[in-house]
Parts: sequence; C-alpha cells; structure tokens
Amino acid sequence: MANYFNDIAPIEFEGPDSTNPLAFKHYNAKEKVLGKTMEEHLRFASCYWHNFCWDGADVFGGPTFNRPWLQSGDAMERAKQKADVAFDFFSKLGAPFYCFHDVDVAPEGESVKDYVNNFAKMTDVLAAKQEETGMKLLWGTANVFSNPRYMSGASTNPDPEVFARAATQVFHAMNATHKLGGENYVLWGGREGYETLLNTDLKRERNNLGRFMNMVVEHKHKIGFDGLLLLEPKPQEPTKHQYDYDTATVYGFLKEFGLEKEFAVNIEANHATLSGHSFHHEIATAFALGIFGSIDANRGDPQLGWDTDQFPNSVEEMTLICYEILKNGGYTSGGFNFDTKLRRQSIDPADLFHGHIGGMDTCALGLKKAAAMIENDFIDNAKSKRYQGWETDFGSKVANGDYTLESLAQYTEQQNLDPKHVSGQQEMLENMVNNTIFR
Amino acid sequence: MANYFNDIAPIEFEGPDSTNPLAFKHYNAKEKVLGKTMEEHLRFASCYWHNFCWDGADVFGGPTFNRPWLQSGDAMERAKQKADVAFDFFSKLGAPFYCFHDVDVAPEGESVKDYVNNFAKMTDVLAAKQEETGMKLLWGTANVFSNPRYMSGASTNPDPEVFARAATQVFHAMNATHKLGGENYVLWGGREGYETLLNTDLKRERNNLGRFMNMVVEHKHKIGFDGLLLLEPKPQEPTKHQYDYDTATVYGFLKEFGLEKEFAVNIEANHATLSGHSFHHEIATAFALGIFGSIDANRGDPQLGWDTDQFPNSVEEMTLICYEILKNGGYTSGGFNFDTKLRRQSIDPADLFHGHIGGMDTCALGLKKAAAMIENDFIDNAKSKRYQGWETDFGSKVANGDYTLESLAQYTEQQNLDPKHVSGQQEMLENMVNNTIFR
Amino acid sequence: MANYFNDIAPIEFEGPDSTNPLAFKHYNAKEKVLGKTMEEHLRFASCYWHNFCWDGADVFGGPTFNRPWLQSGDAMERAKQKADVAFDFFSKLGAPFYCFHDVDVAPEGESVKDYVNNFAKMTDVLAAKQEETGMKLLWGTANVFSNPRYMSGASTNPDPEVFARAATQVFHAMNATHKLGGENYVLWGGREGYETLLNTDLKRERNNLGRFMNMVVEHKHKIGFDGLLLLEPKPQEPTKHQYDYDTATVYGFLKEFGLEKEFAVNIEANHATLSGHSFHHEIATAFALGIFGSIDANRGDPQLGWDTDQFPNSVEEMTLICYEILKNGGYTSGGFNFDTKLRRQSIDPADLFHGHIGGMDTCALGLKKAAAMIENDFIDNAKSKRYQGWETDFGSKVANGDYTLESLAQYTEQQNLDPKHVSGQQEMLENMVNNTIFR
Amino acid sequence: MANYFNDIAPIEFEGPDSTNPLAFKHYNAKEKVLGKTMEEHLRFASCYWHNFCWDGADVFGGPTFNRPWLQSGDAMERAKQKADVAFDFFSKLGAPFYCFHDVDVAPEGESVKDYVNNFAKMTDVLAAKQEETGMKLLWGTANVFSNPRYMSGASTNPDPEVFARAATQVFHAMNATHKLGGENYVLWGGREGYETLLNTDLKRERNNLGRFMNMVVEHKHKIGFDGLLLLEPKPQEPTKHQYDYDTATVYGFLKEFGLEKEFAVNIEANHATLSGHSFHHEIATAFALGIFGSIDANRGDPQLGWDTDQFPNSVEEMTLICYEILKNGGYTSGGFNFDTKLRRQSIDPADLFHGHIGGMDTCALGLKKAAAMIENDFIDNAKSKRYQGWETDFGSKVANGDYTLESLAQYTEQQNLDPKHVSGQQEMLENMVNNTIFR
Repeated sequence: MANYFNDIAPIEFEGPDSTNPLAFKHYNAKEKVLGKTMEEHLRFASCYWHNFCWDGADVFGGPTFNRPWLQSGDAMERAKQKADVAFDFFSKLGAPFYCFHDVDVAPEGESVKDYVNNFAKMTDVLAAKQEETGMKLLWGTANVFSNPRYMSGASTNPDPEVFARAATQVFHAMNATHKLGGENYVLWGGREGYETLLNTDLKRERNNLGRFMNMVVEHKHKIGFDGLLLLEPKPQEPTKHQYDYDTATVYGFLKEFGLEKEFAVNIEANHATLSGHSFHHEIATAFALGIFGSIDANRGDPQLGWDTDQFPNSVEEMTLICYEILKNGGYTSGGFNFDTKLRRQSIDPADLFHGHIGGMDTCALGLKKAAAMIENDFIDNAKSKRYQGWETDFGSKVANGDYTLESLAQYTEQQNLDPKHVSGQQEMLENMVNNTIFR
Repeated sequence: MANYFNDIAPIEFEGPDSTNPLAFKHYNAKEKVLGKTMEEHLRFASCYWHNFCWDGADVFGGPTFNRPWLQSGDAMERAKQKADVAFDFFSKLGAPFYCFHDVDVAPEGESVKDYVNNFAKMTDVLAAKQEETGMKLLWGTANVFSNPRYMSGASTNPDPEVFARAATQVFHAMNATHKLGGENYVLWGGREGYETLLNTDLKRERNNLGRFMNMVVEHKHKIGFDGLLLLEPKPQEPTKHQYDYDTATVYGFLKEFGLEKEFAVNIEANHATLSGHSFHHEIATAFALGIFGSIDANRGDPQLGWDTDQFPNSVEEMTLICYEILKNGGYTSGGFNFDTKLRRQSIDPADLFHGHIGGMDTCALGLKKAAAMIENDFIDNAKSKRYQGWETDFGSKVANGDYTLESLAQYTEQQNLDPKHVSGQQEMLENMVNNTIFR
Repeated sequence: MANYFNDIAPIEFEGPDSTNPLAFKHYNAKEKVLGKTMEEHLRFASCYWHNFCWDGADVFGGPTFNRPWLQSGDAMERAKQKADVAFDFFSKLGAPFYCFHDVDVAPEGESVKDYVNNFAKMTDVLAAKQEETGMKLLWGTANVFSNPRYMSGASTNPDPEVFARAATQVFHAMNATHKLGGENYVLWGGREGYETLLNTDLKRERNNLGRFMNMVVEHKHKIGFDGLLLLEPKPQEPTKHQYDYDTATVYGFLKEFGLEKEFAVNIEANHATLSGHSFHHEIATAFALGIFGSIDANRGDPQLGWDTDQFPNSVEEMTLICYEILKNGGYTSGGFNFDTKLRRQSIDPADLFHGHIGGMDTCALGLKKAAAMIENDFIDNAKSKRYQGWETDFGSKVANGDYTLESLAQYTEQQNLDPKHVSGQQEMLENMVNNTIFR
Repeated sequence: MANYFNDIAPIEFEGPDSTNPLAFKHYNAKEKVLGKTMEEHLRFASCYWHNFCWDGADVFGGPTFNRPWLQSGDAMERAKQKADVAFDFFSKLGAPFYCFHDVDVAPEGESVKDYVNNFAKMTDVLAAKQEETGMKLLWGTANVFSNPRYMSGASTNPDPEVFARAATQVFHAMNATHKLGGENYVLWGGREGYETLLNTDLKRERNNLGRFMNMVVEHKHKIGFDGLLLLEPKPQEPTKHQYDYDTATVYGFLKEFGLEKEFAVNIEANHATLSGHSFHHEIATAFALGIFGSIDANRGDPQLGWDTDQFPNSVEEMTLICYEILKNGGYTSGGFNFDTKLRRQSIDPADLFHGHIGGMDTCALGLKKAAAMIENDFIDNAKSKRYQGWETDFGSKVANGDYTLESLAQYTEQQNLDPKHVSGQQEMLENMVNNTIFR
C-alpha cells in the first residue's frame, strides 16, 4: 500500500508540446501571471474524500477501485495507511493544499469519546504529515450527513440530540482545522433540507440552522480562527430540497440571521448548474453580494440531473471564472479545491493523476487567458460605455435618490423622454472573448 | 363585437353531476367552508392581458384567435371595445376580481403625454365598468417590458432615461390602481435581469432595482395606498436570468434594501417550477419568511422549459396549496389570479370560459379537500410529534442559545448522546392526504 | 427475523372511510370493474430488490434500515431468510405477483459454478414458497450491472468475456423464470450505454446488443417460454446515456434487428419523465407502435434529475394510464409492478406496507375513474369528430396513397382549398376528465 | 434599404492577431486542411428567416430591429427588397450557401394560385441573384407551421385539406429548390406533434406523416432531384411533443415506413440539447445509424428550456463535432447552416455580421483542431485497444452468432470465465483532447 503510487513520479511542468500524459502542459507553479505566481493565484487543493474514501460504488453497483487501504482491518491502522497514501499523492501532484472531513481522516468509533480521541490522534498524524511534506490545509469540515443519525438533517434535525451531535463534530473539526493551520472552515449542509413538506416545519428548521451558524461564529472568534467561514450552496441531492439552494438564497439566510459579515460562500460548479445557474453566474453573484469565498472546481454533465463531480475541462468556461476572480482582486484565503470524482471506470492509480492534471491545466489556461482579457479589458470598456448614462448628472441624481416616483414622472413627461435602445453587442463581445482564448 | 360572448349565459353552479360544460361543478361562490364563503376564501381574479390582448400568436406562428377588438382601427376606440368585451366576460364568469397592466387597457400613444392622457381616460372607463358590473380590481401593474425601449431592462436598464420612463408608468399605474380601489399593486420585472454577464454590471443593476423599489414604497405611503406591494418571482424568460429568481432570492433582495416589511410576493405556479421548486415549496417558503402575498394560479407543463401558463387542473396539488394558505390564516388582500393562457388551438369564445371554469373548480375542490385535512389535522399532529424534542427543556435551551458550540460538545460527550433515527413516515402521510382527497 | 412483520396483519380492504392506515381504501381485489376483477385488471407485483436487498444507503450516507437478513452470516442462509421475509411480506400485502433479479435471490459465489448452483437451489426455494403462498412470478430478470465486471456494460462491454458472463446469467435467469411459471422476462440494460463517446464504438456496441437480444429470442423459443420478452427503456443513470433511451428509441432498435415482433416494452414512470416525456406519452406511444408490455409503476419527483422510484400517488395521472390500457384491451401477460423504493427515512417495517398500500389504492382509483371515462367516452367521441375528415372520400384517398404530391397540389390549387382551423378544445376535455375523477 | 449594409465591407480573413471585429480570425476559405479547403469542408450557409424575416419580437415584447424591408408596402416589392438586402449580406459575409423557406422569400397572397405565382416569380428573382452573386442554395424548405391553418399540424393535421395545403407547399418548394440547384431539401415538422393526448390519435397521425414522406420520396425521384431529403429532429416547441423527437426516434419512424434509405437527418445543436442529448451524441448516433445528413450549427443556453438559436461559440464542442464528421468522410451534400438568431438586443446591422463571423471562426477552429486530432489519432487508438477482444477468435464468433445463449453459458461455466475490468481512461482521453485544442 505504501507503494500504491510507486510507479508514478512527481508531476512536472513540461509545456504544451509534451506528450507525457503525467506532466503539466500549462500549470507552471512558479510562472508569474499579472505579477503573482500561478501557485499564488490558483491555490489548488485536493480532497481526501473522493480520492481516498470512495471505493467506486454507485447506487447501481459495488466497488470497482479495489483500494487496499479501504479493505478490512484495524480502523486506526487503516486511517494511518490512508494518510500515508493520501500525502504521497498530494506531494507528487504538487497542489499546495488539501481538504478533509473529520470522518475522512479518523474512524468514528463506538462512542463520542472514541470519536474525539480518534480524531485527535489523527490530527497529530496529519500535522506530522504536513510538516514532512510541506502540504497545507485549505479547509477542514465535518461530515454531518453520512451517519444514519443524520438521515433527517443535522442542525435542522427534528431531534435536538442530533443537533448536539452535529455541534460536537463541528466543534472538533473547527478546532482541528485551526490547529492544522487551515485557512478556511466549510459547512455543507448535506441533509439540511427536506424530503417532503408534509413532515417538515420549515420555519423551525430555518431558525435552528440560524442558531447553529451563530454558534459557529461565536466559536470561531473564541478560538481566534481568522480564516473564512464558508457555506456551500447546493439545491438538492441527496435531499429533495436543500436550504442553502444557491448563492442568492444563502445571502437571504445570512441577512436574516445577521451573519452576512461572518460567512462567505464556497461555490461548486456542479451545484451551480443543478440550481439552474451557470457557474459564472454564481461567482459573479457572490462578488456582487460581497460573499465570495472559495471554489469547488468540478463540473457536471449538462445532460445529467445529479452531481457528477467531474474534473473541470472547459477552458472556455474557466476563463470567465478566472476573469471574474482577477477583476475582484483574487482569492483571499480561498482557492480552487478539486471536489472531483473519477469516473467509476477509471480504476488505475494513474487515473487519479490524470484527473487532477487535466483540472489544473484547465485552470492554469483559464488564468492565462483571463489575464490576457484583463490586459486589454474590452469587457470593462464595453460596460463603462454601456452604463455611461448613470455617470451623468441626471443618472447620478436618479441613482442617489434625488427623485421620487412622482418628481421623476413629472420630469419625464415635461421632457417627453424618449430614450433609444442601443445594441447590447453580445455576439461581438462573445467573439472578442474567443479571439483572446484562441489567439 | 359587443356580442362576442352573446351565446354564453352567465356561468352558474350546477354541482358535480351536471354535464353542462359551461357550469361550475364545484365552485359555489356562497357556499361556506370553515366559516367563510368560497368567494371570500378564493378571491378569484381574471386577467386582461392573456384573455383580451393576446391574439394567439407564438414565436413560430401568427394569430389564430381572430379577436375582433384587436383588428385595426382607432386605438382608443379599440380600447373601449376591449373593455366592453372584457367586462362582459368577467361578469358572466362570476369571479369577483380582475387584474390589468396599464398598456392592456390604454394605448401608449406617441408621447408621454399621450400615454398619460389615454390611461387617465381609460381609468375612467374602467371605473364606470366596475360601477356597472360590481367587478373589483385585485391588482394593477405596469408593463415595462414589451416596448422596445425596455429590451435591456426597465429599472435595471443601462440608460437612466429608461428607468425614468418605467418610473413614469409605475407612477401612473399605482395611481390608477389606487383610484380604482385596487387591493394590491404588482411589480413583475419582465426584463430586470440579463442576457449575458459580458455586458452586465450586476451590482449597479441590483442597486438601481433597490432604488426603484424604495421609490415605489415612498409613493405608496404618500398616496395612502394600503394594499400590498407585490414582487413576482420568475427565474428566466424572456431574460436568461431574472433578478427576482424565486421567493428566497426576493427575500434576500428585500433584506438588502430594507424592504422586507414593505413587499410580499405574488407567486406564480409555473414560475415556481421553472425555478426548480414545487409550487407548494414556494408558497410554504413565502409563509416561513413572512412575505406571502398573492398567487398567479396557472400551471406549467412538467416536460416543457418555458412558461406555458396553462389553467390549473391538479386538485392533488391545489389541495396542498390551499392547506398551506388556510393554516396560515388565508389571504389578506391577495387572491387567486388566473394569469393563464388558452392553448393556441383553443380559438372559440367558449374556450375562454372552459379554461376559467376548470381552474376555478380545481381551486374550489382544493379548498374543500384542504378544509377536510384541517378538520382532522394529521399533518399538524405528525409535525408536533416529530419535533417534540425541541419542546423539552434540553431542546428549548439549544434553540434559545443557552449553549455554545463548546458547551454543547462537552454535554454531548459527557452524556454520550446517541440519538436513534426514527421514521419520517412520508409514505403514510402521503396516503393520508390521498385518503382525504378521494374519500 | 422470521417475525420481522409479526406486528402486521394481512392487509384487508376496508373502504374509503376506514382510518386504518394498514388497510386498503380503494383496492378491493375481487370487486368487478368493466366485467373483470380489480386483481385481474391490475395484476400487481412487488419487487425483491428495493424491498429486501436495499439497506437504505445512498451516495451520501450509509444504511438506515437495519434489515436483520442483510447482516453478515452464511450467504445461502441469509438468502433463505430473505426469502422467508419476502414471501411473508408478499402474502400479507395481497398483491398476486412478485419479481426478482437472479442475484437478489441467490448469492453470486466465487465462481460461475457457484452462481449456477446457488441460483438453482434458491429457485427450488422460491418454487416451494410459491406453492406454499400462492404467489406468482410476474417476471424474472438478471442483474448484469452491479458486479464490477459490468462497469463498462454487459452485452455492450468492450470485452467479449463480459458479454459471455452476462449471457450466462440471462440463460439461467430465463430458465429459472420459465421453471417458476414466470409470465414475462425483463431485460433492463443498466449499463448498456456509455460514459463518454471518446472511448465508445457506438456502432459495434449497438450490433452486440442486437446480437444478444437475438440470442435471447432464440433461447425463448427453444425452451418454449411463452411469456413476453420485455426491454425496459431508461435514458441515463447510472450511465451518461443508455441505448434503450425511451420507447421510440427501443422501437428503432427492434426494427433494425428484426425484433419488433419478439419484444415489448416494460415502461417505468420515472424513466419516462427522465427521458423528457410524460408517463402517459410513453404508454400511448407503446400502444401506437404495438409494443406495449408491462409497467413499473413508480414515480419520480418533478424537481429531481434522478430516479427516485417513489410509490405512485397521483390518481389524476394514473387515471389516464388506466384509460389507455383499458382502451387497448388491458394487460396480456404484463402488470403493474412496484419497482419502488421507500424514502431512506422510512425505516419502520410498516413503512413497506404504507408505500405499497398507497400505490395500490392509487392504481385502483385510477382504474375505477378510467372505467367511468370509458362508460361515457367523451375522449373517443372528441377524437372521432376531430378526425372525421379522414373518413370522407377525399381523406381516405389521401391516406391510402391515391394522390401523389403533384396530383394533390394540382387538386388543391384547382379547388383553392382553404381549410378553417377549428378549436382543439383542450381545456374542455381536461375539465371533463377532472369532472369524471372528482364526481 | 439598398444600402442597409453600406457601411460594411466584405469580410476578409485577417488572422488571429487582427483586432478588426469585422474580419475572420480563423476562417480562411481557401486554406487547406487535410487536403481540402476550409470552404469545401465546412460548406457554410446563412439562413433567410432569422436574418431577414424576423423583426426582433419575442413573446413578451415587440420588434426591436426596425428592418426597413419589413415595414408596410406592396408585398412583392418588399420581397424583392428583402432579396436585395439578403444577397448583399450573403455576398459580403462570404459563406458560399444560403437556405430559405418558401414563405421567407415570397408572400403567401390570398389564394393558392397567388402563392404559386408569387413563389414562382420570386424563384426567378433568386435565380438571378444566385447568378449575379455566385451564391448557392444549400437547401430549401416549406414553412408549414406559421400560418394559422397549421396550428394543429400539417401532414398530421386532423383535417385532410390541411394535409393537402402542406403537400402543395412542399411540392412547390421542392420544385423551386431543384430549379435553383439546391443541394438538399429539408422537412422540419414544426407542428407535427401534439399539445395534448386527450385529442390526439397518435397512430393515425403517425401513419399520415409516413404517407406524406413517401409522397415526398416519390416526387423527388420523379423530378430527378438528387440531393438529400432531410428530416430535422426536435423534441418539442412550439408543440408539447414533436414526432421527430431526436435522431433515434426519426430512425424508428423511417424504418417503420421503409424510408431509411431515402432520408437523412439535419441535426440542430439546440434541438439535440432540448431532447436531453449532447450535440455530439446526435451527430455520432446519426453516423452510427447511417442517416447523417447536415447540421444547423446554432447553440442553446444550458440553463434555458427553449430554442435560443444562438451562434455557436464553443470551439471545445465544435472540435468533437468536426472530428466525428471528418472520421466519417465529411459532408456529402450537407453543410453547416447557421439557423441562428441574433439576441433581441443586437439591433445594429453589424451585429448580423458579428454573429456569423464568430460562428464561422468557431467552426474553422473546430475543423483545424479536429484535423490535428486525426493526424495523431489517439481516440482511434484507444478504441482499437479497448475493443480488441472482439477481434479475437472468441470475440468474432460471439459477434457473428456462432454461439447460442445456451452454448455460450456452457462455455463460460466450463472456462469459469472471470474477466477483469480495465480502466476506461476517460480523464486521460479528455486531457488529450484539450492538449490538442490548446497546443
């Protein structure tokens, strides 16, 4: 097991002409783009769960991956072996960060005490691994959706004792994240939602979710954790409806409970599309609302209605994402995490590398193309020109509230205002984006 | 034209055994349900636009309806003929309310002044018609999306002069609504959204939308209009993305601009499903957020991705909607408006009646079935039992904020809390609903 | 385990006023409808897999059901216990039929020989159980999608040895079905499709699928099995694309390989909706193409993009399904099979009964309402009138090919044919359906 | 009007570094790719209808484009002016082909005779224009869906006289296409489908559709037209369901009526995605079934459920399309037609050019990238290796029918066949595609 990836050397940048499938063609960590290295811009992370906890099973069939560290044996021993393999992979891949759920790294055991002790021991193991490899933690999180006790929700469970169990996991996961120097802490409400309105008290569940998040904020400040708290929107699956449906919905929730200064969003591409939005829309909306945090950079399949969590491979899409991020000043503590699954048929050890290499090259290309767009910022120019009326005296007055409905109506009638519609030039702008990507 | 509906007598209630297609089988206006008449509960309205302004054209073909009042001629003359026909229809149908857009009832003319004058004259015509027929106005609204000047939005237009034109229309439409005793005023942002992010300043457009709504609120108070202001969520169409995507999104918008006490939502069934939600979800969410206002009671086609605006015909669905409304105290000033279109092949005068009769009977049945559910409220009982843990001492403390994350984790560990998961009983509850509907 | 359902008595018909959740309100097996008993019309079956092989796990979490017979122990012993529990359930429920996959009822073992032997032994167990309880087999099938060897397809696998393994399972499953008096044999191509076109030879895979089905037909005739062979369409999941996408696609496949007289379709409601069709559409299309066979009577969730396999509970929808079946002469050897899953939170033994009782009552109501529609067949009348032109001399000639394009164009020009469009009366017909359901 | 495009010079190829928005960056008509010029490979066509017959109206609003030739006046005069403008555009754009519907180019008039005469006259005008400009006709077609008489279908109309009117139009449109040297003839069944099954006789309508197509085939042979007859699949819109749902459905229809050698498909990208398939899937399926014909190269919006008909701009997608076409020998008489609409806000004359330039550059890039994939055909290599088992003696025997189900089962048991599953390498192949596109 220690040698699971023995046949694979650390992944190097070899440039676009390389035919070595186990090399980067575009991601060159130390190459500078707009004054920062790619590594600093992109802040890539790999995830523990899909890569090292999943065995290839789906709803219609059993494990295909045959990962040695998931076979039976002593649970703590297996957890350590898993950590060995995971950090071997992380190091060889060359992404600077990783992410985990509490129960990805440590066995739950038979009691709360077991959970606490196992997790504490494995936190020490992870700390040693980080020290040894130089890997850093982008974010930690707690899995409060897989254990059957969470089948009806965690903080929104009808049973307050389940709320308490979830609080316990989040407490320890936040502490572990803080101890490991984690840069953010994520909350994905996997089953915070409903299956049927017939047995659901929407208002009460929402209030309990608000209470829970306020407890998280209070604890963050108590322990002096200064990373971002991140909520991760998803519209449904496994629930029929998840409360954190999309970015705009999360914003309303945060406003209701006075949390909009305390949380940001971790946007996942496939969650965006499942909620009826483009990935680009969710990123742009988060920036417009001031709650952008981090990204789970997977992709869905446009024809499938579930979370396929595929590796991103559209440079065309990623260019717009990177443009949005660069225009807004780049990541603070967030980054591109690959919350991505291999296809169930991709059973070779090398496949884990292929997936990540492709994803990282896609983001690297997106970054470079976006930088080129910014160097000749036709988008910005087009917007400035399009909205110039709002910079006139009249426009400013309207925007600033100097008119009432009545006074504005009077002015309009007096002037017989008859504005002409002007072209939105969508096709030309789309062409200019492509001309930049394919120059 | 005056005799367009001459062959059709006023629609009467004849009971479920009637085979007369032009009679109500279930809607009996004066019949009491839970202490109020059906008419008081359901507050039906018919709309001007789909019924009297649409000629049967769609994107792939021309007019099929051949409505005499839409043929060429003097615009004001035609507007008056249209009002004659509309009120003849409204009266014969027997729904107590109607709804309109400004440009449904009056020609826009060539100048702002024309618009103002035409609309003022037609407001007088409508007032006389109301007087004559006893019809009431459920709500008025302004169409700020059809004229080419609004192609890029109204209050979110890149050009402040378009904002001003929209303000002018809303000013006059609010005044007309107030004058006509309208019980609510609706704002549907038909093109308040975007076609492409490449030419869109999301933050600026959102701020302008916020500004506009604040002007509307100020004007409402100034004129002493005491009905509800209603925003109507829709996720897309004709835009690629509409800012008022769904109820939760509207709530976040209202919170941002301090408007959550001033606006409620007008929920349309087909808009709900286009946004990825059930109609039931949107209603229940609006109540949970305290912003429920009124309903556009059409339906979509589950296989089609656009707004088909069909007449509601699922008693199964409508029962749950009515249950939700009854449990929350019923409509205040809102009602069931039929924002519904005939199929383009339904070209006979009688078809307008068939559509509405079916819709009204569907709602009436939904009301009666919902009343039966409330008389033996198994939903309420199931919820009370399911959430009883939150009424215990421990549950109350958690909900009220007596625990921090840390103290709750400590308690959980000390007690080794191990809550058992219990059945959600979804299938049994679904059966009980059906047993009530089909008793 | 033997007493898993001990607390539950056989389910009886108690009529619509019963408040006993464990009784039928509408399904009265021996009650006659249009000359046949409900039992003969509806031919209900329960399935082995979702009820007795699934433990409540989903992609995001572990088992919730805690079924004793799925715990560890000797595989054959567990298989027998499972059969005990299953037949106890089947008998108490009172549906006359059941259905199974080979590996639902017998362990696969370590070798092909093991598989053959285990399955043969369990076939004897099932035969004895049938004898003992009076249960009959609606259809058998082989699971050639769950074992990892099938991850890339069964008969469409890139490896012919996998084709051979699948053939082996189907051979034995057909034989077992024949031996047990099964009335049909089903083939659902769970992974007969693709994940990506980049590694898929569409034409070759299609040909191999055609070859496989021809082998199945040959074997059917060899062993003298006279039930229907049924293909089950599904558009995707777990694959990105399944070759048996929908009924029309299956028809084209059957025509290509000369199989259209040998196969019919087993239509599943949720598969229909995932493929972009209404359930009604798929049934009506199968009849129009002459390939209707049987039904998997579950339902999906209109907002979710995966197969939720919920119990049917819409009488409104089921009435149209039953109308279609009755109009076309009813089932031959097919029936309504409940390929339905409990919600993962429905963990009580009674929940299995609640789900089926609700489903059976829904179908029973659908049958009775459909019978009422047929007794006063306004649908048939409306269609006869609508298409009457095709019964005229001119219409018949056109339909029979007496005109060429040229001669018809000449005739049209000479006569200056100017047909008037007439109302499709959709709303009126929809009302009449509802008036029948809710009389 | 004659000078509508006066400000715009003929579009030239200026290469990827050009910043002139009115120049091609990648489409260089005479540049050779794999031995043929781009012009010969891509066979671009522009359409008459969206470009010159549409005024910018949508369901929610009126005309925005203000095209002078659509203003009132003598119908034939306007048709000639439209032809002037259209051919001016076609010539300046530099795509070699155009396409039209009968009623795009000639007014329908008041009688069948008018229609025939007007169309004949305009056919002469088009012939002269072709002569003058060198433009060629990719295909002609008849619009048998816009006139109200077709509201319930054309060849599937309940009224045989409507069938006759449709036959008349198709007769003349085929003749005109033949006379103008058109290379194909297209039939898109805009309203050949249903709105509700309640008033639809599926089987009869299907038979009439089959009859109609057989008449078309007979006429094709009679007049000696040797282009392709093309059916264009679309799943819905404006109908609830269209009979030519997708390529696989069309294939089944063709097989039923013995037409599979006489028709091919015209695949539209946006229709593909509305039917739940990728564009790539529809192309690959058409080739696998032997019925590939031509392409309508627009795109949809992945978040919208209607036909947005946008200009193609994904090189990533188009590369796979071009790879599929090149691998299968390229177009015969088909080509890339831009059945594309400007966004309604794109009101400038130049916008028509921007849309087409972007679309043509996208296809040109796709062609060049696909050629690079073919020069180093890793896809072909991967498939050969993956399916090599079918080339062995055993595989060939299975594929060729040398085994029965029984003999194959016996062989499998004797050999205890235990095939190992091997990686599908999806991620690696996806990376190799991207490495080719972005080298």
